[in-house]
Amino acid sequence: MKIAQVFYENRLIVGEVKEKKIIPLAWDGTLMDLIRTDETPGPGDKDPLALDGVRWAPAVSNPGKIIAIGLNYQDHAEESKGKIPDFPLVFAKFPSSLLGHREVITWDEEVTRKVDFEAELAVVLGKEVRNCPEADALDAVFGYTCANDVSARDLQFGDGQWVRGKSLDTFCPLGPWIVTRDEIPNPQDLGIRCRVNGQLMQDSWTNRMIFPVARLISLLSHHFTLFPGDIILSGTPAGVGTFREPSIYLRDGDEVIVEIDGIGRLANTCRIVGPH
Amino acid sequence: MKIAQVFYENRLIVGEVKEKKIIPLAWDGTLMDLIRTDETPGPGDKDPLALDGVRWAPAVSNPGKIIAIGLNYQDHAEESKGKIPDFPLVFAKFPSSLLGHREVITWDEEVTRKVDFEAELAVVLGKEVRNCPEADALDAVFGYTCANDVSARDLQFGDGQWVRGKSLDTFCPLGPWIVTRDEIPNPQDLGIRCRVNGQLMQDSWTNRMIFPVARLISLLSHHFTLFPGDIILSGTPAGVGTFREPSIYLRDGDEVIVEIDGIGRLANTCRIVGPH
Repeated sequence: MKIAQVFYENRLIVGEVKEKKIIPLAWDGTLMDLIRTDETPGPGDKDPLALDGVRWAPAVSNPGKIIAIGLNYQDHAEESKGKIPDFPLVFAKFPSSLLGHREVITWDEEVTRKVDFEAELAVVLGKEVRNCPEADALDAVFGYTCANDVSARDLQFGDGQWVRGKSLDTFCPLGPWIVTRDEIPNPQDLGIRCRVNGQLMQDSWTNRMIFPVARLISLLSHHFTLFPGDIILSGTPAGVGTFREPSIYLRDGDEVIVEIDGIGRLANTCRIVGPH
Repeated sequence: MKIAQVFYENRLIVGEVKEKKIIPLAWDGTLMDLIRTDETPGPGDKDPLALDGVRWAPAVSNPGKIIAIGLNYQDHAEESKGKIPDFPLVFAKFPSSLLGHREVITWDEEVTRKVDFEAELAVVLGKEVRNCPEADALDAVFGYTCANDVSARDLQFGDGQWVRGKSLDTFCPLGPWIVTRDEIPNPQDLGIRCRVNGQLMQDSWTNRMIFPVARLISLLSHHFTLFPGDIILSGTPAGVGTFREPSIYLRDGDEVIVEIDGIGRLANTCRIVGPH
């Protein structure tokens, strides 16, 4: 099942995505509220919405945490001259950075001038887990979606700590929808790509992850309790802009698309909004 | 006003702390819910509770983000041999690390063996702000409380990124209560101390912050929208265990107290819970 959050008369509703339509579900709450329960509501009494006309919310809003993993693809670790980590390299994106499909990534040039893209498979937790064995880890997943771990490289590398440069408002596009885990039997068998203005910039496969999803969940859960709705961004493959020769950064008007096989295509445009 | 969250018949209630009692307020929600509104409920119909007998929840639960600031006291930046930052050094603690007053800081020795304390003034936001001028910044504060930025130094310095070592479950004691901003006219004029088993380990003054609270709020709000209930941990002064000669780390049974003048005393004991 593909499940999404969209705006309907200025409030969030949850719908099933089916045959190029969104079927609003009989659910009076956010998708996050739904993930926290075990309910599977049926269609509600609102009319289906055409995919083209809706305004998309991030696939999850107000998660407890967004756990992001650095250097989790061999090829990206190599291009960044980073050491292959012995343990998943954890950083955070603040939930206030979340953005929906088709919404606009914005920045102020007084804050950053080096904005980069990172296609990532996002894992949405469905259960509370602590010290979870790897063999049980995928059972804790609610579903999967696409993320763009947008990164202000000047802030990220200037600070050393990555959180600020990774957490600017609008810097975490997530969606368009969540595909529930029953439709993704193996999250390590998915093509993942990023295109900027149609040009293929990242083109990889999730089997190249150093720590696969089940291992990530297990290892992380030995450190922090994972809660329903928590998001794990599982790292980006090679091809990001900053490590190219010469470096490429996003510009006003650019369109960035993250595409993952079996999940969907997350598209966002870019807009410079300052200095004022 | 001092305002707290405590457990009452296994659910959270909000109360005013007054004359060694907690007066339950006429409020059916968490303190976070209250912060999000402009309401100021009066006393409810429950009997006052003695301070000694209650089980404390973290002063805020489920905040949207905990923004932590590194190296924000001159003396601590010097002891850590860190460069004085040009901009507040931002890292994150996951909200799942929050802990109440008198609750137990726990860790597994398979995960960390170098657990350290950090006394910090915590700022709880009361308003949504974006691009906030420094002159208006303190108006966005709901109140202040004590925090212990408990840190697994082996993970923090091993990873380079600090989030994992700072975010283990129970590693963010916060409380005992929030003192509303009207009672703290100048957050840069507070004595701040940390004691371990009665011994004074940190003893400083908030006027030694490199970026004072109003400046922090303003600068951060130019990067991310700050929401009601968001928490800023404003950095720790000199005296942490890891930079002592020889280094000192917390042990099973230790009692750590963070004390800030005009706010209160946050006390927690330590317990090693593994390996199993």
